[in-house]
Order: sequence, then structure tokens, then C-alpha cells
Amino acid sequence: MDLIKASILPGFMELLPDDQIVFNTIKNKIIKTFEDHAFKAIETPVIEKKEILLAKGGGETSKQVYSIDHESRDMALRFDLTVPLARYVAQHYHELDFPFRRYHVSKVYRGERNQKGRYKEFYQCDIDIIGDKELNIHNDAEIPYIMYKAFEAINVEGLVININNRKLLTGYFNYLGIDNRVDILRLIDKKDKMDIDKFKSLLEEELADSNKYERLLEFITIDGSNEEILDKLKGLKVDNEEFVIGLDELDTVYTYMKLFGMDDESIKINLYITRGLDYYTGMVYESFIKGHENLGSVCSGGRYDDLASNYTKQKLPGVGMSIGLTRLYFILSQAGLIDIKARPYCELLIIPMEGALEYSMGLLNQLRSSGIRSQIYFEKNKMGKIFSYADKENIPYVAIIGEEEMKENKISLKNMKTGHQEAISRDEIKTIREKI
Amino acid sequence: MDLIKASILPGFMELLPDDQIVFNTIKNKIIKTFEDHAFKAIETPVIEKKEILLAKGGGETSKQVYSIDHESRDMALRFDLTVPLARYVAQHYHELDFPFRRYHVSKVYRGERNQKGRYKEFYQCDIDIIGDKELNIHNDAEIPYIMYKAFEAINVEGLVININNRKLLTGYFNYLGIDNRVDILRLIDKKDKMDIDKFKSLLEEELADSNKYERLLEFITIDGSNEEILDKLKGLKVDNEEFVIGLDELDTVYTYMKLFGMDDESIKINLYITRGLDYYTGMVYESFIKGHENLGSVCSGGRYDDLASNYTKQKLPGVGMSIGLTRLYFILSQAGLIDIKARPYCELLIIPMEGALEYSMGLLNQLRSSGIRSQIYFEKNKMGKIFSYADKENIPYVAIIGEEEMKENKISLKNMKTGHQEAISRDEIKTIREKI
Repeated sequence: MDLIKASILPGFMELLPDDQIVFNTIKNKIIKTFEDHAFKAIETPVIEKKEILLAKGGGETSKQVYSIDHESRDMALRFDLTVPLARYVAQHYHELDFPFRRYHVSKVYRGERNQKGRYKEFYQCDIDIIGDKELNIHNDAEIPYIMYKAFEAINVEGLVININNRKLLTGYFNYLGIDNRVDILRLIDKKDKMDIDKFKSLLEEELADSNKYERLLEFITIDGSNEEILDKLKGLKVDNEEFVIGLDELDTVYTYMKLFGMDDESIKINLYITRGLDYYTGMVYESFIKGHENLGSVCSGGRYDDLASNYTKQKLPGVGMSIGLTRLYFILSQAGLIDIKARPYCELLIIPMEGALEYSMGLLNQLRSSGIRSQIYFEKNKMGKIFSYADKENIPYVAIIGEEEMKENKISLKNMKTGHQEAISRDEIKTIREKI
Repeated sequence: MDLIKASILPGFMELLPDDQIVFNTIKNKIIKTFEDHAFKAIETPVIEKKEILLAKGGGETSKQVYSIDHESRDMALRFDLTVPLARYVAQHYHELDFPFRRYHVSKVYRGERNQKGRYKEFYQCDIDIIGDKELNIHNDAEIPYIMYKAFEAINVEGLVININNRKLLTGYFNYLGIDNRVDILRLIDKKDKMDIDKFKSLLEEELADSNKYERLLEFITIDGSNEEILDKLKGLKVDNEEFVIGLDELDTVYTYMKLFGMDDESIKINLYITRGLDYYTGMVYESFIKGHENLGSVCSGGRYDDLASNYTKQKLPGVGMSIGLTRLYFILSQAGLIDIKARPYCELLIIPMEGALEYSMGLLNQLRSSGIRSQIYFEKNKMGKIFSYADKENIPYVAIIGEEEMKENKISLKNMKTGHQEAISRDEIKTIREKI
């Protein structure tokens, strides 16, 4: 029989066990953060009706969707967790209580072109709070705070959550009488990707009015400390209701992010953040790692007015953020920023000598009852090979069981890192837990 | 805009949050059992090359495979976790150490026809131990023992793991000179699904030799205690090497399952268990819940000689078992056998009165630092509605914060189940953890 080359499709991530343990540890710490902050898990099918997934209509997304070819039903793989959330909340509206605090950590699928660090299958870690008709602005401070705690839990230092409010910009557009907002929003969103002079000339061209240009430029280049930015914005005395609401929301969110426990250095009011053409209507967030801003935003989101308008007449406003975990793992490992001590899959390897297998079984059970991840090396092999196995598998302790150990009811415990060996009586086995 | 009805495809499971918490608790306890017994997680892409997935060739499986229709690549969704394991081990052979103890808990996809309790997307919980060229028989005792521990961890009582060894049956076939083994294996596998007289007459017809029929029937109806069955099998004095090896393996596995810590009532040597036409070559396992045998096997598997022969010339024998978790959850809940105390997603709801929000923020942070899953009710609502929210969300404690609480630096803690209310000083907050 001809062999088939064992390989996976390009653009998919697959890890070796040592890296997988680190990845899973990161994922579990993020989940634990969400759960510790009173969010509930939901899980939705990976395959959904295409009409549900593409309710919002075409664009880039529909080209990237993986369609399923089976019994001529219109099915596809979800490309994010927000559309399934909208469908879930609309479908189960009468069985849910609001505010609905849900997290969802799962894989999504996008048939993008191959590109380094972009994956076609990737984990998203989403948290959202959905209100029924209304949702208080304080939730808009809690969401970024929880993401800040998630990054703290996975030992990523220097996270700065950039915040802005869309109403500020649209209010200011109205105030200045600017009509072609979409083009200008798009331009502002791309500001950091081009030379500042290039940006200025494009903005001037787009606005075709030197007064408007000057005032908009002055506005979006407002900088300083967070307090200074807020003061300058208040000082503009813009007579537009939307602007005033946006400024008040931004101020409240900033204040409450600190009350939740974030320090000022982890928050940056950034008036360029617009989240492009997304469906956000109020607060918007992007997050960067200090000194690694070039890696792009590692956690983004915002406030939306009406989550599920394609599926229900209920008005369901919400606020949420998402971590693209597969990409985050890739960029953190590329940048050498992974600082996770994962628990070894096996902490103690028992090597039974001839005739010591039954005795070793009792020892194995005792070790496992004491919470020590243990296994017996059952195979027949040379001692050198067995030690090399323990070494390569990063098993920290090895216990050889021979006649002497059985007679004295002891185990000879060898620390694989230091080479130190000591005899421990069976009564003291629980103390091994502290050594690991 | 026309609304699209929010719904999922038939044959997919989606749970409401309360049930999801129970499901996740079960899944996490199974994973913890695997990890406590020194198994490592792997994760493989859900989408793989079709030639990899269907390497073993057609049959029922290929009809059930979900193909992906995207940029004319031959891709499909995995239908089990064993084929991806084989591909993974073949692909990464030089980077892995053997014996390779891996677990994999993830979703697989089968486009089966709609049927109650059968899902098109379902979780499998697999453990396998893969050897390089050889794998000791003691592993065949550890795998069912760990599954036994997994069921213990999720409080399912009365699990009986039925064990057999294929070599016994094929050895006995050889010994009797029976040629049409496939048909007879298939028949024996279906024995429990038909009337015993019907089975006997079909078996007699198939064998067309009354001596062979009598002796095979005598063999497969051997019953009694496990020890008695082993004694009877030894007493047959079958002069066939395969039979002798099979009997010795069965005896060893039975003995070691007990040495690992299983009681005799949880093991049943069952000579009908053949696992039909699967690729197993030695030990085979099926598991039933006492008194609920009609639910079918809840955990099955066996020993295979050569895992990855489609992808590599390396001989990789292994032994493994699998729980179909989605189906298990369904049948346990239908049979009222779920006995899981899931931790509430939120343990304490803070209700701030007018002017108490900032004070409540400090309290929230203190509660969360003490490991109590807490949230503030930020929305403006009537007290009755808020209490009804806490009730429906199964939040066990509510703390109302008003002027008095702020003045005395206390919280009024109300037990939502008993209605009991008590004042607790801020210094004693850690004690709440014990109440929950």
C-alpha cells in the first residue's frame, strides 16, 4: 500500500506537546479570569445555517467563509463568535436573564490567503455583556478591566488599553458640518500605517476646506496625559449633544477603569482609535503591548447599540472585547514574551526493576492519591534509554524500585535536573508534592 | 429589513447557560482525570486534507464526512480523533517520545441522518498510549482504569467495563477450523440485539457444522464470575498459540485492572464483546451503566497493532478508549443520572443604592480578591426585579449597599435560598467563601 504523506493544510496551527501545554495553560488562565469575574460560558455549533452567518451581507467575510458541501444544505463554519452570540441571544431571549454576561472561548474559521502569523483556524476569547433595551455605561469600564486582568494572569507585561468613543468623532463631524464621514473614519483608522505628512495631505484633500481641516486635525492630534486630554476635550466647548454624551461616557469609563483597579499607565485615551467600519456605536478599544506596538492590537472591541437586529425586534445593546488567542500566542512566542510555568504532564516516573512491578503499582496509586502526576515505565528497555525518556519528557523526578526499596519500604527519588538522589519513606510521599 | 429566524441546524446540540455549566463541569472533570494520570493534551485542526482523513477508504464514514467547499482544495472536517492522532504521530514521529500518552477532548463531525440522541457535532474524550514497535500489555489495564476513574469523577455510579480479547476468538476459530470469520464476528457482535433463539439458529446456519456450532456456542456462552470464566477458558485446553496468548493477555489485564484499584464488580469478562469490524487486534472494551445497559456502551476502545500504517512505515501499536461526551450527557440527563454540583457562575450580587456605587466598587474588588465570583448590578431597576434576576440566575448571595452599610463599613448579606440576612464587617469578607 502506498503511504500518504502525513501533513496538515497550510495556514493551520498545530503544536508539539510541550508547546501545547503552554498554549493550554494560557487558554485556561484566560478562561479562569473570565469565570472569576462572573461571566458564564456558552457554546454554539461550529456549523451554522449560512443565512444566519451571512445575515449582515457580503463583503470580505462572505468570501472567507468555509461552506460545507453536504446533502445540499446551506451550511458554513462560523467566522467569529459575535454572529453566533447574536443568534443565540435572539433565539433564547425568553430563557435568558439580562444583563447577560457571557464568555466564549472557541475556534473560528476564515479562509484567508496564506500569510505568516495569520491562521485559518483560530481561537477567539470573547467576553460581552448584553442588556435588554439598555445597558449602563459602567459595563464599558468592566469589560476592558477584565481583559487587563486576563493579560495579567498570563504574565504579559506592559498592556495598554487604548480607549475612545465614537460619539466624540461623529459629534465633532456634525459640529463641523462634515458629510463624508465614512471615508474620513477610514482614513483616521489608517493613520498609524502611513507617514504623518501623507496623512495630513490626504485629510486636507478629503475635507477640501481649510478651516474644517485645521479643526479636525487639531482635534485628533490632541495628546498628553489622560487627564490632560479630557481637559482639552472639555475645553473645546463643542456645542453638539452627541459630542457631549461621548465625552461624558469616555470620562466615566476612564474613571471606572481606574476604580476597577487599573493603573493610569495601562489606559490611554487615544482619539485615533475608531475601529474602522465596524458596527460600534460608542466606546471602542484596542490594546497594545508597550515596546511591541508593531505587533498590532492584541485585544479589541467596543459598544454596539443593537446586537441582534437581523434576528429579532428586541433591542439588545452590548459591549464586548475579544482576544485572537492563536495569533497572540504566535506573536508572543516570536517576540519571546511568553512567561508561563506550565505544570509538567508527568511529575514522577516509576522505574520498576525485575520483580518489583506489583509493589510499584501500590506506590503508583499512593502517589496519584497524593496528587502527584505519576506513571510507571512499563516497557522493557535499557536504563539509559529510560532516563533519556524522562529527560526529554521533562519529568522532574524518577523513582527506581528494586529489592532494597521494597525491603525497606522506601523510594529512591532522583531529581532529574540536579541529579540529587534521596531515599524517602512511603509515609513521607506527600512531601514530594512540595518539591515539584 | 426582514428578520431571519434565529435557529440552528437540526442534529446539533446547544445548551442554555445553566446546562452548559454542568456540561463544562463534566468535561473539565474528565480532562482533570486524564491529566492527573499523566496524559498530555494534543490539539489538531478540525479541517484536514481529505486524503488524510479518508486514507482507510470508503464505507459509511466517507458518506458522513462533511466536505469543505472552498477554493477547490480537498478538505473535510474530522469524523473522529483517531485518524488525526495517527497522522500526528506519523508526522511528528521524530519529535515525540514513546510510549506517547496523549489525551484529546474535542469536537468531531458526522453528517448522520437525524435521530434522537445522535448528534452531528459531538465531543470525543480520547486517551491512547502509543508505543514504538512494541507496547507492554500493562497499558491495556491502565487505559480502562483511567476511564473508570473519569466516570467516578463525574459521579456516574455502576459503571461496568466489559473486557475481552480478540485473539481468544480468532484463535478459537482457527482451532475449530472456521473460515467465514467476518460474518460470524459480525453476528456475535449483534447477539445482544436479537432473541437468543434467533441468534442460535443464525449461528448454526452460518457454521453449517453441528460440532463447530456446539463448540462455538459453548465457548461464547461461558459465564460466571470473572475468575470462573478465566478458569473455564483455561480448562478448555485449546491447542492454539493465538488463543493461549489472548487468554494470557486477558488474565494479565484483568489482574492489573484490579491492582490499579478497580473492584471486581466494575469489571466483566464478556466473550461477546468483539467491537464488530473495527481495527482492534487484542483487548477490546465496552462499558455499560448497571441497570441502564439499554443506553448502550458509554465508553469503548481496544488495542490496535499498527496505528499509522497509512502514513508511515514505523510500526506504532497502541491501546485507547473513547467517551462520546455529547451523547453521554444526553443519555445521562434523559435517565436522570446527572449528579454534578456546578459552581455558580456568580456567587454574590452587589446592589448599590443611590450614591453607593463608588463604595461598592471597592467592595467588589475586595470580594473578587477573596476568590468570590461577584458582580455589581449596574442597571437602574426596581428592587423586586433585581432580586428576581438574582433568583433566576441562581446567585446564592446578594449584598445591598446603602448609607448605613457605608457608615458602618459592613455589608448586609442575604442568602437567596433561606432568606436569612446577616451583617458582615468588611474585615470578615473572606469568611463568605466558606458559606458558598
